[in-house]
Amino acid sequence: MRPTLIVGSVAFDTLHLGGQCHPKVLGGSATYASIAAAHFSPVQLVGVVGHDFPDAATQLLRSRGVDLTGLEIASGETFHWEGRYSDDLSSRETLRTDLNVFADFRPKIPNTFRSAPFVMLGNIDPNLQIEVLDQIEKPAFVLADTMNLWIDIRHAELTKLCSRVNMLVMNDEEARQFTDRANLVQAAKILRSLGPELVIIKKGEHGALLFHEDQAFALPALPLGQVVDPTGAGDTFAGALIGYLARSNDLSPNNLRRALVYGSVLASFCVEGVSVERLTSANTADVNHRFEQFRQLTSF
Amino acid sequence: MRPTLIVGSVAFDTLHLGGQCHPKVLGGSATYASIAAAHFSPVQLVGVVGHDFPDAATQLLRSRGVDLTGLEIASGETFHWEGRYSDDLSSRETLRTDLNVFADFRPKIPNTFRSAPFVMLGNIDPNLQIEVLDQIEKPAFVLADTMNLWIDIRHAELTKLCSRVNMLVMNDEEARQFTDRANLVQAAKILRSLGPELVIIKKGEHGALLFHEDQAFALPALPLGQVVDPTGAGDTFAGALIGYLARSNDLSPNNLRRALVYGSVLASFCVEGVSVERLTSANTADVNHRFEQFRQLTSF
Repeated sequence: MRPTLIVGSVAFDTLHLGGQCHPKVLGGSATYASIAAAHFSPVQLVGVVGHDFPDAATQLLRSRGVDLTGLEIASGETFHWEGRYSDDLSSRETLRTDLNVFADFRPKIPNTFRSAPFVMLGNIDPNLQIEVLDQIEKPAFVLADTMNLWIDIRHAELTKLCSRVNMLVMNDEEARQFTDRANLVQAAKILRSLGPELVIIKKGEHGALLFHEDQAFALPALPLGQVVDPTGAGDTFAGALIGYLARSNDLSPNNLRRALVYGSVLASFCVEGVSVERLTSANTADVNHRFEQFRQLTSF
Repeated sequence: MRPTLIVGSVAFDTLHLGGQCHPKVLGGSATYASIAAAHFSPVQLVGVVGHDFPDAATQLLRSRGVDLTGLEIASGETFHWEGRYSDDLSSRETLRTDLNVFADFRPKIPNTFRSAPFVMLGNIDPNLQIEVLDQIEKPAFVLADTMNLWIDIRHAELTKLCSRVNMLVMNDEEARQFTDRANLVQAAKILRSLGPELVIIKKGEHGALLFHEDQAFALPALPLGQVVDPTGAGDTFAGALIGYLARSNDLSPNNLRRALVYGSVLASFCVEGVSVERLTSANTADVNHRFEQFRQLTSF
């Protein structure tokens, strides 16, 4: 099976959700993306943690099919983020960010990972994302995620990165911010002109848009009666998407659309539990059932 | 052909859009809804205008197949609304509202309209919407639209109205406000428990949700490269939807879904021109072509 290489953060999150506090649960972009991708293909994770990272967490990741050869254990503590969500979960505020060992992270791709055909550059400094690409031999498909911080302070580097990726994933605000266009069709056109032939604009509870060739694909999110924890939904979406592409090894327009649906399926599980709880409890039958729910939801 | 009865406002709008002012263009919920519905079925409009309402406007409506027997011409001036949109068209502020003859509007349904099988209660005082229903003989299908103002000041009347309609149309903010639920699935459940077996939640550029029986249908909006004037898009959506239902006389789940697509098709034309400009210039071939674009946009 073709593996998916995933680079990003591995972290502890302290989450304040609806009056409850969940201290130091497993988090990080590479964690969510890896567990999601591993539903479809073997995953090679590259990241860094501190000495405090518990065996239970590494065992969980390994049990899901995540190869941790590239998980550096540095001296110091693991990246820790603390945040509080609004009651309706539509917004969150950061209470605390301890970068810890993540501050000096320089991704080193193990030799055995350098020929990975499918690569996800999770949300880290674009300079590091470029360093990762420099260490990899001709990947078939590269997906890059990012965030508003890098759009602010690494605009030129992000633009450079764009010329080397096949698929760029941004949320609607980030796409507007990066391109200075309010209209998402115009924003996607500008983004594609920078390099990536595929642009995905995530819209949270409103779903996602894929711009490919001269077409657009719009996928709503599954309307859920109960959302518990939105953390990591975007990383999960991208991870499942690329994991499915690695498994199917098919970049046709129709298969790209199916990959977005699988991304949304896993994201819908992600938000139903705290941390990676529901993402790990969902099995293949659950995933396939929810894929069919998306058909029912959208067909006319 | 089965007619659609549409009750609502007929107005002049003065629109400030992207630095340009469009003084006293044709507007009003019944106007937009009627022109949209008339793409599919004959329309019987009930509303009120003043002596200043121009012949050109009545001729335009008649030429589209709108029966104006129920358009009262009262002494005074026509309802006039003035508003300014933000540059990205995502919000608007009201600069002026002159209710004029609309202040004393008491809809009188002409005898020839009382047996209309498909009825759209456009956004007016819920007390008047109820008065309309009291004048109508056993309609097959009643759709009601509303707005935040009535949720604020006519909550009980709106609740009463709900028990007498088949389909309730609200935007996401209104549904949350009326039900005091942030989650739209929960909100729709509460709304359905009040009476309407069908609930539509409009989300503007993010599309619309239909809750019917134990199913949900989610339809994204067509991503448009250029939006000119969002005024009336919601009325257009509802008008086209009920016009299509009247034409097809089929309330099956699949046909309801198609009706939402036609609603979105006409709404997508609506926002491409100022006032009803593009809504009137689009022909049947344009409508069918865009329906197919929605298939392309959403299929996987």
